Amino acid sequence: MPMSDVMSAYATEKRFRPKRAPERASYDKALVHAVLDEALMAHVAYTDEAGVPHVIPMYFVRDGESLLLHGSAKMGLAKAARRGAPFCINVTLLDGLVLARSGFHHSVNYRSVTVHGVPEIVEGEEKTRALDLTVERLAKGRSAEVRAANVKEFKATVVLRLKLEQVAAKTRTGGVNDEPEDMELPVWAGVIPLHLAVGTPLADAACLPGLAAPHLTLTGPLSER
Amino acid sequence: MPMSDVMSAYATEKRFRPKRAPERASYDKALVHAVLDEALMAHVAYTDEAGVPHVIPMYFVRDGESLLLHGSAKMGLAKAARRGAPFCINVTLLDGLVLARSGFHHSVNYRSVTVHGVPEIVEGEEKTRALDLTVERLAKGRSAEVRAANVKEFKATVVLRLKLEQVAAKTRTGGVNDEPEDMELPVWAGVIPLHLAVGTPLADAACLPGLAAPHLTLTGPLSER
Repeated sequence: MPMSDVMSAYATEKRFRPKRAPERASYDKALVHAVLDEALMAHVAYTDEAGVPHVIPMYFVRDGESLLLHGSAKMGLAKAARRGAPFCINVTLLDGLVLARSGFHHSVNYRSVTVHGVPEIVEGEEKTRALDLTVERLAKGRSAEVRAANVKEFKATVVLRLKLEQVAAKTRTGGVNDEPEDMELPVWAGVIPLHLAVGTPLADAACLPGLAAPHLTLTGPLSER
Repeated sequence: MPMSDVMSAYATEKRFRPKRAPERASYDKALVHAVLDEALMAHVAYTDEAGVPHVIPMYFVRDGESLLLHGSAKMGLAKAARRGAPFCINVTLLDGLVLARSGFHHSVNYRSVTVHGVPEIVEGEEKTRALDLTVERLAKGRSAEVRAANVKEFKATVVLRLKLEQVAAKTRTGGVNDEPEDMELPVWAGVIPLHLAVGTPLADAACLPGLAAPHLTLTGPLSER
């Protein structure tokens, strides 16, 4: 087992550590994993050959100390990965709106993870496993129940792996941080909590009788609703 | 009034139009505005001078045909804006998980807007107005109630405006799209709806008595809860 797997914090290079509000930054692996396992969407950024940045919302799954992404083999993001372009991935959970007594101290509560690195393209059996994990993340056992990718689907899909090495979490929690001189202002201050909520499953009209919606494998507040 | 304000669709250049699944793309201004007005978080990407992409989650507000962002005047993103770097902003609402009978046809329902362009830095009275809009977006009338930025706060904040010109929406709605040969598989298929939900406001303990939490100015599903 490499040393990085047994350490509890990422040894992120200084250039990938947040400079603003460093007191809100963390490199703790447990915190990073918790955010990545709760969030259902990553924002994946890369720069194209003309120097134009792109950012794409993507479903993803954490596989130990890496993130797995998948998409069309023809997408610009796949081309960027094939030429070894650096990527930046941000995953953010929006936890609340912070309404302060001054405009300046308005804020949001959030838990955010940013990962930098050059993704590798996953092929062969490892790609099959990655696609299984992608489905398995939603509901335990589901990857064995659904039809696996056929040759055409397998070829049409690209799978990328980005190792969790250059990683930084950033979080804001708690209440308002108003200036002492603003405390007597007659304006409501506090936090409006936000969370992603799961609605009632809508079964496809052609579902065979007797099939129940799967129990989703979700972590964090999502799992409690 | 410039022509672009009276047209109902963005005249987005081909290079900023999605190439994958173009049937899911839209340039309709009403759709774009609805997504931007409902979402509370944008993901803002730029490339630094070393060629490394960055993506930052940010609160934002739409001001007619532009987006307003704000942050620390010292942040890397502000430096990139000052040197005229191109930005890419994505705003995505995650509406549901689509569980299909094959791994390949698993998907997500979403409404997403991507904007490309070079932001301008907003100064002077227009900056004051932008900061007011940023607070006003949360609750009507609030910008007049809170303490306005003092000179130090005003200087410490950068405000960026990105015009809505190179804009593309992309959406997926509806149910599963399974292959005809998979319809008899004994696996549940359907959509699990997702939405961002608003919790009960938590007043700051030092709130003056008699102040009620503001009625949030929210659009879309958020406003119905």
